[in-house]
Amino acid sequence: MVDLLIIGGSDAGISAALRAKELDQTVNVTIVVADSYPNFSICGIPFYLSGEVPDWRNLAHRTAGEITQTGINLLLNHKAVSIDSQQKKVKVVNEENQENWLTYDKLVIGTGAVPVQPAIDGLNQSGVFLLHSMADSFAVHQHLTSKKPQSVVIIGDGYIGLEMADALTHQGIKVTVVGRSPSVMRTVDAGIGNLIAAKLQSHQVEVASSVEVNAIQQQDGQLVVFGTNNFHKNADMVIVAVGVQPLTDLADSAGLKTGLRGAIQVNRKMGTNVPDIYAAGDCVETLHRLLNKYIYLPLGTTAHKQGRIAGENAVGGNREFAGSLGTQVVKIFDMAVSRTGLRDSEAKDAGFDPLTVEFETWDHKVYYPGAKKLHILVTGDKQTRKLLGAQIAGHYQGEVAKRIDIFATAIFHDMKVEDISELDLSYTPPLSSPWDPVQMAAQAWVKQLA
Amino acid sequence: MVDLLIIGGSDAGISAALRAKELDQTVNVTIVVADSYPNFSICGIPFYLSGEVPDWRNLAHRTAGEITQTGINLLLNHKAVSIDSQQKKVKVVNEENQENWLTYDKLVIGTGAVPVQPAIDGLNQSGVFLLHSMADSFAVHQHLTSKKPQSVVIIGDGYIGLEMADALTHQGIKVTVVGRSPSVMRTVDAGIGNLIAAKLQSHQVEVASSVEVNAIQQQDGQLVVFGTNNFHKNADMVIVAVGVQPLTDLADSAGLKTGLRGAIQVNRKMGTNVPDIYAAGDCVETLHRLLNKYIYLPLGTTAHKQGRIAGENAVGGNREFAGSLGTQVVKIFDMAVSRTGLRDSEAKDAGFDPLTVEFETWDHKVYYPGAKKLHILVTGDKQTRKLLGAQIAGHYQGEVAKRIDIFATAIFHDMKVEDISELDLSYTPPLSSPWDPVQMAAQAWVKQLA
Repeated sequence: MVDLLIIGGSDAGISAALRAKELDQTVNVTIVVADSYPNFSICGIPFYLSGEVPDWRNLAHRTAGEITQTGINLLLNHKAVSIDSQQKKVKVVNEENQENWLTYDKLVIGTGAVPVQPAIDGLNQSGVFLLHSMADSFAVHQHLTSKKPQSVVIIGDGYIGLEMADALTHQGIKVTVVGRSPSVMRTVDAGIGNLIAAKLQSHQVEVASSVEVNAIQQQDGQLVVFGTNNFHKNADMVIVAVGVQPLTDLADSAGLKTGLRGAIQVNRKMGTNVPDIYAAGDCVETLHRLLNKYIYLPLGTTAHKQGRIAGENAVGGNREFAGSLGTQVVKIFDMAVSRTGLRDSEAKDAGFDPLTVEFETWDHKVYYPGAKKLHILVTGDKQTRKLLGAQIAGHYQGEVAKRIDIFATAIFHDMKVEDISELDLSYTPPLSSPWDPVQMAAQAWVKQLA
Repeated sequence: MVDLLIIGGSDAGISAALRAKELDQTVNVTIVVADSYPNFSICGIPFYLSGEVPDWRNLAHRTAGEITQTGINLLLNHKAVSIDSQQKKVKVVNEENQENWLTYDKLVIGTGAVPVQPAIDGLNQSGVFLLHSMADSFAVHQHLTSKKPQSVVIIGDGYIGLEMADALTHQGIKVTVVGRSPSVMRTVDAGIGNLIAAKLQSHQVEVASSVEVNAIQQQDGQLVVFGTNNFHKNADMVIVAVGVQPLTDLADSAGLKTGLRGAIQVNRKMGTNVPDIYAAGDCVETLHRLLNKYIYLPLGTTAHKQGRIAGENAVGGNREFAGSLGTQVVKIFDMAVSRTGLRDSEAKDAGFDPLTVEFETWDHKVYYPGAKKLHILVTGDKQTRKLLGAQIAGHYQGEVAKRIDIFATAIFHDMKVEDISELDLSYTPPLSSPWDPVQMAAQAWVKQLA
């Protein structure tokens, strides 16, 4: 019987376990989980803190019982502290600091990521929170409930920072978002960033851009956040969400090669440089399908895919990761913002000759009630005319999320921008136009190129 | 200067004209329009009759003014009655029956379709309406307004019949839908047909299936509709919507080859067998991309594509139609029903070895408020494992329409069902799951195949 050991009970680890067990019922699968919360949807934390998900237990993709029912063993509250890849065993410690060695035939590392701790004076004081794990989430929830803060500064204007701005506004808290870049959410173009900022402001969220926060101090029972450009803001609470970095302290003991930001290097089969050790999810470098190189791009969707492949290959499969396009969507109040592929500047940096065209239209025929504006950016290469990327912002009920997926599927298949008009997409006046907005935007790109 | 003459002012004709003018400003484009309503969205008629679009003028994709502003000539209220392809001229008559000959260098025929008139006794009496053109639409509107019917029988349970059931229920009219097939909307599988029937019934629409209507009689100031299986139903009004057939009376005079149901035969460049004559839209046979053969499949989206290609090629282009997948979506009350590609039975008839798997899940993480059930059918070939078709039914805000488009884009690119899991699709808990429902359904298909 093959022993498959998996370190990490989040997206990558659970996906690997489930896939291995699905393909081979005889494999003995054990998942080492650092806390008591295997398979939690950490992407759902903002909605727990907003009050929209009243019970945190509902954030579980699956309950521990559902997982063990498939025959998978869960070793909760155990931390893997070192790997002996010669002897093929892993040292774990429990909450009482008792050590134990677990042997494996195949090992999957899915230790994920931890929040980046920015160089800010006063980060480690009461009322200042980093947000990533369920434990972080309980700490914030506890603070919200017991201290009832009236105001919060969120450091970081990426998608978690913006989701938290929405969530805490929903709780009646006055929110200020501070970001380093000239426009919010630097993963989308400034035009869309400005639409997001306007949406935030319409919900009384203050937005401070081009600010580098350097200190948080206590003054008169409040926190004061100080930054460049004379930024200073009083608040009852501070949340820091400036991105994550791979958690790979185990890599060294196993002799695993690491690369960008310390992420574990993997091949397309999710294998590492050490035999019988796979790695997947937020702790690895990810192949970008368009760039055809490895970058650090932690996303839950990617973790699921990579974990599934690692699990399949660990039980004798031969599946390869097709690469990521960095497809993402975030809902901020009633607005959805999405992207896939490369933005203009990213394409330029990668040696493409990009043209990006902005286009605005309605999600469906405007004569039918409830039409919503969609703001679409299409990036294509002027030489090859290939589609490189797209961004869409609009009302979340305007099918923004699945429209970006049409672009994502087109990029996956190396489509030329002009050929998007060939796709046979669905239409009825309440839901689209005879040319879907995706196609209208592609046609606008072609027109501008000519 | 090239004279481009276009017969037909609906989707295909207007698309051809706009594309030709876009590519070549010097071309002299004239569109012969049989009525006064060029470029109307006839797909929008049900929403005018429901009252949701109060002003019929808003149904215009573009106004006549917007069209002529591009330099295109509109010859309204002129009917083309014959084509002399030797002399390259077209005879038109106006409302006063005055004849005139128009010459052309290139001709595009986009005469569209007319409603099928089923063999029903008493079809041509007061209170019985066929529905296709703006004129039909005004007649129905006039009847609704002046006669205030309390009840209607709709003969035909295809998408127009069902949209009208929704529309007239919206007007407070008691609706009965009668269809020939055992389940409603025979373009989707019975499982989904039954979901639609349940939705109709929940809105007090009566549904009679497996009924062949054979007579409509007047009795005591009402109409009575009689059919097989002892069907009889009194109503104040009857609407007949049993499909359309190509309008191609011009084809003979031009020596054009016609095929299925009399539709004009075209090649992939939308050329006919007669030099310099193109045809597009509901009056032509359409290439099905998966079947790789021509069928009759009239759809507005296809008409736009074919018209655009005809227009491009008429001014010297060399574009080919990529084929249709029959992608469709319809909104019935709060439900959207969509399909693309082949259903199981269609695939079998075409010589494939299909497996169809049904799958139900939520449009987004169920912990986030407002999750809607999606009912998904995936059809793939057991031998090649290629995706052949998909059907989705669910709440119209569950991104049903653009999810079917992910499948449509996958089929367009000949994807295997298992490779759909490789697509990098967008996720945030309020809008999807880490594996999009489209991918979960594909995974269920793969699992069932194994």
